[in-house]
Amino acid sequence: MPFTYEYPRAALTVDCVVFGFDGEGLKLLLIERGLEPFKGRWALPGGFVRVDEELEHAARRELHEETGISEVVLEQFQAFGGINRDPRERVVSVAYFALTRLDDHRPQASTDARQAVWFNANELPKLAFDHQAIIQQALTHLRSRVRVEPIGFHLLPPKFTLTQLQGLYESVLGREVDIRNFRKRVLAMELVVALKKEFQRGRQRPAQLYRFDPKRYEQLKKSGFQFEL
Amino acid sequence: MPFTYEYPRAALTVDCVVFGFDGEGLKLLLIERGLEPFKGRWALPGGFVRVDEELEHAARRELHEETGISEVVLEQFQAFGGINRDPRERVVSVAYFALTRLDDHRPQASTDARQAVWFNANELPKLAFDHQAIIQQALTHLRSRVRVEPIGFHLLPPKFTLTQLQGLYESVLGREVDIRNFRKRVLAMELVVALKKEFQRGRQRPAQLYRFDPKRYEQLKKSGFQFEL
Repeated sequence: MPFTYEYPRAALTVDCVVFGFDGEGLKLLLIERGLEPFKGRWALPGGFVRVDEELEHAARRELHEETGISEVVLEQFQAFGGINRDPRERVVSVAYFALTRLDDHRPQASTDARQAVWFNANELPKLAFDHQAIIQQALTHLRSRVRVEPIGFHLLPPKFTLTQLQGLYESVLGREVDIRNFRKRVLAMELVVALKKEFQRGRQRPAQLYRFDPKRYEQLKKSGFQFEL
Repeated sequence: MPFTYEYPRAALTVDCVVFGFDGEGLKLLLIERGLEPFKGRWALPGGFVRVDEELEHAARRELHEETGISEVVLEQFQAFGGINRDPRERVVSVAYFALTRLDDHRPQASTDARQAVWFNANELPKLAFDHQAIIQQALTHLRSRVRVEPIGFHLLPPKFTLTQLQGLYESVLGREVDIRNFRKRVLAMELVVALKKEFQRGRQRPAQLYRFDPKRYEQLKKSGFQFEL
């Protein structure tokens, strides 16, 4: 044990709150812990930051190692430093939230994780550490971000109907959204493009498919435009 | 040096980005460093987290030690973990932003700080470490928060005019705000209360004084109300 310091030091970890959307409800990716503490308990993917590693790199690496998922939008939202949050010793964790398309990613557990499974965000099992509190904060963060940045589109398939977009917002915000007003606001921002002659067919009448236009968003932002849904 | 670990560990610090408003522009509190590295350079108040200390407690303690300021609203906004941000070794810093009334607080430097001074937020000196980048992120965070939470009122005196409130928003957002629309939105939310027979007198005609009503805000929030300015 050659690493010696004048004062005691906390260990540093990262944790990832990965959200998905299956068209019905908001999903959350959890792993079953293969090691103590909390062996066998469900937890967020995450682990120790190497001393020569950037925080986001550590989050991406741990997520990939434990779940096989790599192509996600990661955003840091809070550091959790409660003194007794880890039974071993003082551990400070920098938490990231990630948004991904559910169908792109079939999770595959490895390293410290026995299983990696999508849960319904509002039906979670008992969790290790303070991960319940971390998830709660991630949800609060997601709810405020999704209203002012077009990040929700990362959760949808590339082509989507306005009903799917509305369903996503209802799932994230946890409340009903007035459909007429919502559609009006979405279309007024001119950030979604109707795809010519592309419709989703189902039990109801065919629904127009749209795609999000990220270039248009970048242009609008430069001229002071504020996304708001 | 009795503290040894199996793997090398980063040191953990906190930094505080303290904003004030003097009625003219947004202000930022800096200290002059009394110690190496960057001795004599301006920097954010902050320092090392004790291993048995909560993160916010460390931020509050360091802010008080270095500037004498204690009554502030502190909010964590981001951890900064760039590998080379400190010339000594790997140091990860959890950054807080704080809002305070300028006239409540005359800063007084002590411990590691030679001076504590309010600067104009858009005329900052050359700074130590990555503090310029931390401040930039704090500003981005403040700009998005101030629009969806009534935190701006912490920067104003308890009694204020709508012109002062507008000036604050213009300073924070860094752009002009349409006055008629702004007043209409403020008054429509019914979060500010006109003070009976209290006016600010000056060169112009007397201006109605208002106060913010935090209880009313708590009530409104429970019923799903969303602050928006």
